Amino acid sequence: MRIARFSHNDIPQYAFVQHDENDGKDYLVALTGHPLLGQVEPTGERFPVDGDGIRLLAPVIPSKVYGLAKNYEAHAEFMHEQGWTEQEHAPQDMVIFTKPSTSVIGPDDPIVFPSISHDMNFEPELAVVIGRIAKNVSEKDAMDYVVGFTCVNDVTLRDLQNLDPMWTRAKGFDTACPLGPWIVTKDEVDWTDAHISFTLNGEDVPEASGTTANLIHKIPEQIATISQFATLLPGDVILTGTPYATGSLHPGDEAIVHVEGVGDLRNVVVQG
Amino acid sequence: MRIARFSHNDIPQYAFVQHDENDGKDYLVALTGHPLLGQVEPTGERFPVDGDGIRLLAPVIPSKVYGLAKNYEAHAEFMHEQGWTEQEHAPQDMVIFTKPSTSVIGPDDPIVFPSISHDMNFEPELAVVIGRIAKNVSEKDAMDYVVGFTCVNDVTLRDLQNLDPMWTRAKGFDTACPLGPWIVTKDEVDWTDAHISFTLNGEDVPEASGTTANLIHKIPEQIATISQFATLLPGDVILTGTPYATGSLHPGDEAIVHVEGVGDLRNVVVQG
Repeated sequence: MRIARFSHNDIPQYAFVQHDENDGKDYLVALTGHPLLGQVEPTGERFPVDGDGIRLLAPVIPSKVYGLAKNYEAHAEFMHEQGWTEQEHAPQDMVIFTKPSTSVIGPDDPIVFPSISHDMNFEPELAVVIGRIAKNVSEKDAMDYVVGFTCVNDVTLRDLQNLDPMWTRAKGFDTACPLGPWIVTKDEVDWTDAHISFTLNGEDVPEASGTTANLIHKIPEQIATISQFATLLPGDVILTGTPYATGSLHPGDEAIVHVEGVGDLRNVVVQG
Repeated sequence: MRIARFSHNDIPQYAFVQHDENDGKDYLVALTGHPLLGQVEPTGERFPVDGDGIRLLAPVIPSKVYGLAKNYEAHAEFMHEQGWTEQEHAPQDMVIFTKPSTSVIGPDDPIVFPSISHDMNFEPELAVVIGRIAKNVSEKDAMDYVVGFTCVNDVTLRDLQNLDPMWTRAKGFDTACPLGPWIVTKDEVDWTDAHISFTLNGEDVPEASGTTANLIHKIPEQIATISQFATLLPGDVILTGTPYATGSLHPGDEAIVHVEGVGDLRNVVVQG
């Protein structure tokens, strides 16, 4: 099942996304309420995803977004080869950063290149969406707390990362967290081996791709570790890590993150 | 004016706090709505602050909490002398970290010592409460975006700080951000020279005290700098830094942060 948040003439609502076999199109089946927080029912309205006055929004407004740094060995080695880090390999301990809710944007929203930076990078990733309050959960039970998955571009201001030890600016600026296009429920995603790829201005960037099979700290371990110190709330998001190479984004660029079984997240960069 | 959030028989509400000259007591004048988000009016109900079924809550639920690290030279030197940091002095650049909304607790709420740590520290500070949406504001205009001030204990798991480069665990665990007892509006606080002190189990800890006159990066600069990269929302909070020494907290300890002109924030530590 796909869960989307959308606006119709600027009024936000949740929906299930249905594929219509007759015309081959996706439709938004509008819902009452919030599917992560309570029972929902169809309102009776249905809109084509690409209909007039319809806009997909970030599928959740997270109270918090956690991200994993260097969670693929190929990415850790790439960052070392590029001279960004002294360490040749990924650290053994999980490196966890955060992004604030104000950094979250939706599909097709502009990524705003802030004037404080001259080096913006893309990082395509699989994002986990929490569905139930999670505190001190075991790895064994962790997936019970996940509602599904979405795509994320963990946009990073690379030149600020070394100046700013907490990455508060580098990964937390407004528009640094494009999420979408929707949540695909966990039963429909092979999250243990989902292929991640990235398209820049219509061209595949093969060195940015990989599969979640190569995650160092797997998703259940991520949830268990984070829930040891912080309570995860419904709608909270974990960015699982970028698989391999990153690269520059410039104003005017069109960035598309593709995660197998989840969808395509498209955003265009604009100068701030 | 003092703005408090409280619960009466577990129902949360906002209030103005009034001092009654007749009996020398503080009273909560209950309000409709949210004073940071719209017009409010008295509901007609009034409760003594220490009344039955009355509990003060954190005065805001911030979408985000920013904190300043090493924002007093005396604290930077203390951390170096204690062997926590190699740097002898405070860094020139502002070091900004974040705490999530799930770390916020209110007055008298327990600080829970998590089992992942063996070294919990107190850090008494003045906290700034944002009152209006702030993006790209100048230092000159910055104070227009502040509604007032509250006290914070920037509780830190010191042993995790070096293991965890982003301080995500060390400063972001559940209960790491006690706030309160209320917001005092900016017209009533001398925020340029407010004395901060700390009491542990009834004893003053003189080496933890200081004044905001010694802040390296002053409050208008903090707001201007943060608003360059992130949008500050009403209720967001900035922890301005701890003035000098920190010290250990153990289960059973009673910690009281006092900020001149703002009030006392009391919490007790319990084992998690």
